[in-house]
Amino acid sequence: MTTKVLIIGAGAIGAFYGALLEKAGAEVAVVCRSDYEQVKQHGFNINSHILGTWTFTPSQVLKNTADYQGTADYVLLCTKVIPSVDRVALIRQAVSANTAIVFIQNGVEIEQEIVDAFPDNEIISGLAFICSNRTGKGEILHLAYGRLALGNLPGFVSDKTAYLCELFRQAGIECTTTEAIVTERWKKCVWNAPFNPLSVLSGGLPTLAILQSQEAFVRSIMQEVCRIAKATGHQLRDNIVDVNIEHTYKMPPYKTSMLLDYENVQPMETEAIIGNAVRAARREGIETPYLESVYALMKLRELKLNA
Amino acid sequence: MTTKVLIIGAGAIGAFYGALLEKAGAEVAVVCRSDYEQVKQHGFNINSHILGTWTFTPSQVLKNTADYQGTADYVLLCTKVIPSVDRVALIRQAVSANTAIVFIQNGVEIEQEIVDAFPDNEIISGLAFICSNRTGKGEILHLAYGRLALGNLPGFVSDKTAYLCELFRQAGIECTTTEAIVTERWKKCVWNAPFNPLSVLSGGLPTLAILQSQEAFVRSIMQEVCRIAKATGHQLRDNIVDVNIEHTYKMPPYKTSMLLDYENVQPMETEAIIGNAVRAARREGIETPYLESVYALMKLRELKLNA
Repeated sequence: MTTKVLIIGAGAIGAFYGALLEKAGAEVAVVCRSDYEQVKQHGFNINSHILGTWTFTPSQVLKNTADYQGTADYVLLCTKVIPSVDRVALIRQAVSANTAIVFIQNGVEIEQEIVDAFPDNEIISGLAFICSNRTGKGEILHLAYGRLALGNLPGFVSDKTAYLCELFRQAGIECTTTEAIVTERWKKCVWNAPFNPLSVLSGGLPTLAILQSQEAFVRSIMQEVCRIAKATGHQLRDNIVDVNIEHTYKMPPYKTSMLLDYENVQPMETEAIIGNAVRAARREGIETPYLESVYALMKLRELKLNA
Repeated sequence: MTTKVLIIGAGAIGAFYGALLEKAGAEVAVVCRSDYEQVKQHGFNINSHILGTWTFTPSQVLKNTADYQGTADYVLLCTKVIPSVDRVALIRQAVSANTAIVFIQNGVEIEQEIVDAFPDNEIISGLAFICSNRTGKGEILHLAYGRLALGNLPGFVSDKTAYLCELFRQAGIECTTTEAIVTERWKKCVWNAPFNPLSVLSGGLPTLAILQSQEAFVRSIMQEVCRIAKATGHQLRDNIVDVNIEHTYKMPPYKTSMLLDYENVQPMETEAIIGNAVRAARREGIETPYLESVYALMKLRELKLNA
């Protein structure tokens, strides 16, 4: 039987991974608001520097989740995690008893809301390590990377997760499953917590310039994230800060996702990436003055942007 | 005999206080580069919301300190304190044996450079609590406040300082002398260290909005400045943070001097206000992560501005 997938949030992440699943033989529908007319008529134009160029024609193109016809094996939630988006409400009407809920999203401690709302469903947490942009209506540019990490909550790998992983691999992208996906979120946060906000607060510096000028500051933030992770039960490797620093020195100068949002006057994932980490620190009684400073300044920046 | 004064840096601060000294009967010359032609021909137009409007015609208008004719009783250095301005070189050629060097400038730990360069001269450190702007060539707008604090280094009040203070008072502005002018600098820094950089890093928020959104963060920075001041021998009053917070809630929403510089694409006093405080903390072995964060972010912001 054909695997049925519904992608909610068909932007640079959702449309790209949806296109891969369709390539692997799944029946892939999309909920897609802003580019609805374009995608309905012409599908998505996927331009990948790694996998080539092709058109992704979804099986259904929908304005609302409620319009979905059929029973989804997987609902893939790929929106940004921002306070104005109610993630539970977005997916509820497409979730059946056997639907696995997959979220491929940024941030830490973003799981519980979904787990609480769907206590009887399988919940798969996903992380994308990718550089992709939406370059126009229905236009997705995949520049580099693309690895996915998938794992069930609270900490195992189900058959359904393994199968989804296999589909992504068949489509040509690296995908790994893990029994410690929550730990993986904290690992990703070690990099995101400094570079995302610093790229915005600096007024638009790429990662390399930030690092070359303020490596000690970047390290201080990373170390605080490691301490929070440990306090929440996720001990990261001792050398993770060094590895991240070395890796970033070798990357080409890179504009973070938060900087791209900032430059495009789009809401930023401040709460998912920084706010949730700070709240975890406060809850665990850990002092994180560097992260608190960055969070306070991002809140001031947003206050000014929304003024 | 008429008191002879040379003002170096005849901007919003220098021209205003020079105009007051001329009002009190002193012979006041100015070194004034950017507005030289205008001031040479028409003097300064002083528009004070408190003291009225008048024209200040300097006794000499000079492009360079070396052109000064006569022997100055007081040299008043009123430039911004920024790395590109060599304060010692700027004043050297007008400093005679009996010249008192007065600097009316922002920042902490900015004294030693002058003390070291002129070991045989009287050095008077001055702080201006004023809201004034240069609104055009030779145009000075004095909006509010105006108090001056003057004191000799390392910590006394000379006859010459008392006399200068008297001249300012005669001209109608509040002036106080203090035997603890270095302590006064730290007190001013308690307010400047948060509000100046936060106004810039937020992208232009006035003081009230900063405080209403992030009072705890502002307090953390202020408390770090108090700890640095104490370590350098300047114990501030226990309630100074509370007093500053309450005072700022009562002020009209205010654009800081650093924000005005930022908006006018002028160099900011980051090093004099934040950098020197951070360096003092490191030297004294005090951890100041909030101030370090703000400093690092200001350096990134400047890096981007100068890119």
